[in-house]
Amino acid sequence: MESLKVVKIGGNVIDDPDNLQSFVKTFAGMPGRKILVHGGGKLAGSLASRLGIDSRMIGGRRVTSPEMLEVAVMVYSGLINKRIVAMLQSLGCNAIGLSGADGGAVIAHRRSAVPVDFGEVGDVEEVNGKMISSLVEHGMVPVMCAVTMDIHGNLLNTNADTIATEVACEMSRFFDTSLIYCFELDGVLLDIDNPGSVVTFIDRGIFENLKNVGKISGGMLPKIENALRAVETGGVGRVIIKNSDSLLKDSGSMIARQK
Amino acid sequence: MESLKVVKIGGNVIDDPDNLQSFVKTFAGMPGRKILVHGGGKLAGSLASRLGIDSRMIGGRRVTSPEMLEVAVMVYSGLINKRIVAMLQSLGCNAIGLSGADGGAVIAHRRSAVPVDFGEVGDVEEVNGKMISSLVEHGMVPVMCAVTMDIHGNLLNTNADTIATEVACEMSRFFDTSLIYCFELDGVLLDIDNPGSVVTFIDRGIFENLKNVGKISGGMLPKIENALRAVETGGVGRVIIKNSDSLLKDSGSMIARQK
Repeated sequence: MESLKVVKIGGNVIDDPDNLQSFVKTFAGMPGRKILVHGGGKLAGSLASRLGIDSRMIGGRRVTSPEMLEVAVMVYSGLINKRIVAMLQSLGCNAIGLSGADGGAVIAHRRSAVPVDFGEVGDVEEVNGKMISSLVEHGMVPVMCAVTMDIHGNLLNTNADTIATEVACEMSRFFDTSLIYCFELDGVLLDIDNPGSVVTFIDRGIFENLKNVGKISGGMLPKIENALRAVETGGVGRVIIKNSDSLLKDSGSMIARQK
Repeated sequence: MESLKVVKIGGNVIDDPDNLQSFVKTFAGMPGRKILVHGGGKLAGSLASRLGIDSRMIGGRRVTSPEMLEVAVMVYSGLINKRIVAMLQSLGCNAIGLSGADGGAVIAHRRSAVPVDFGEVGDVEEVNGKMISSLVEHGMVPVMCAVTMDIHGNLLNTNADTIATEVACEMSRFFDTSLIYCFELDGVLLDIDNPGSVVTFIDRGIFENLKNVGKISGGMLPKIENALRAVETGGVGRVIIKNSDSLLKDSGSMIARQK
């Protein structure tokens, strides 16, 4: 099976023009088949506040009102997606931007309003692996944003980590797939104050141990849970959590199936 | 040669949700290979004024400032494009949205600032016919917006009529191509006050006659000039100027090569 890398970037890359330019340059130079999934960063929030659109929070999570969804669609699938695609194209990387609507790439359903109504938010139902893999086979590099659609043609806001995971799982039917989460740290750290304390290999057993002794907590817990699910039942070969500065370096934390 | 229809819609369809929904339904049901090119309508202007972005005019034409370009990219390639794509997908039409950056679909160069600097505006240089025709051959329906890119990765604002014409000319290398301009009238009218006075057939000779006797003037002149160029030297089979309400009807003005 040919190999494929699904790379996810978030706010730390997108919000800083210099970081974005340097990341995009590195990504363009990464050999082999690849897909980029990007989040939205802070731009949507700042556009919303310039437009006087309030974003309500419930339990620390943002509610996507219909007005906020419009902003998200404009910023994620418009401004950020096309900027990245144009930068990649100018570097000779044949990028093509995809929202979940394009080619029916990522179909979702609106999340139930019970117990909590988060608004225009979609949970992924199906990834169109045939279409996406066909683009990849034609030498193209899909650049996917965190907007999906439901079967009725409604656009929905969806978590970019989830899209990256679901796309990687579906792509595993076609390619030996690696999922690479880029963020601002060098990997999963044993000691958050020590950048050198990267846990280089994590499987289910190691994860449970680290969790039990309190070495992994907070936002890293669901991230690794997702990664373990992707390698254990989703068919993904390996998930690597690493610094966006070191895309091409052999670094970060690798999450893989228990041997 | 298989046939292909390139359909262009503008503000009269896009600005009215009911019109848009009804047009999209008709377009989804149109048999055969097809491409949709859409303009921006009034949404970009109204978003710009909500954001306090002034749009300067020179000689009746809008100048695209860097801030205005961002708005155009968000509205054209984001909100409008993804709305149309999602509506088409929900109707079983396998739409895929493309800005000029995606897959290098439409490469432009920034228009010279001499004699008049219209800002971030691009004139089309090259259409990636191979990529677009490959999508069409795979059963997809490209939905193209009026955003292009230059070879340096800068996004540019480009006239949607021009994009439709250039795409149709390039597609003529692969398909027997018809270009359909949809607007709010039934076609080219001999008498603007008489909707029944549609000129059903126009070639170079008829055009020159009508122009000389003052029956065609104003904005219709460049539209027909473009259409004649498309059929005379661009390889397009025929251009039809018609009402967006009557996409599937045998109606409107057909512009074709002199027999």
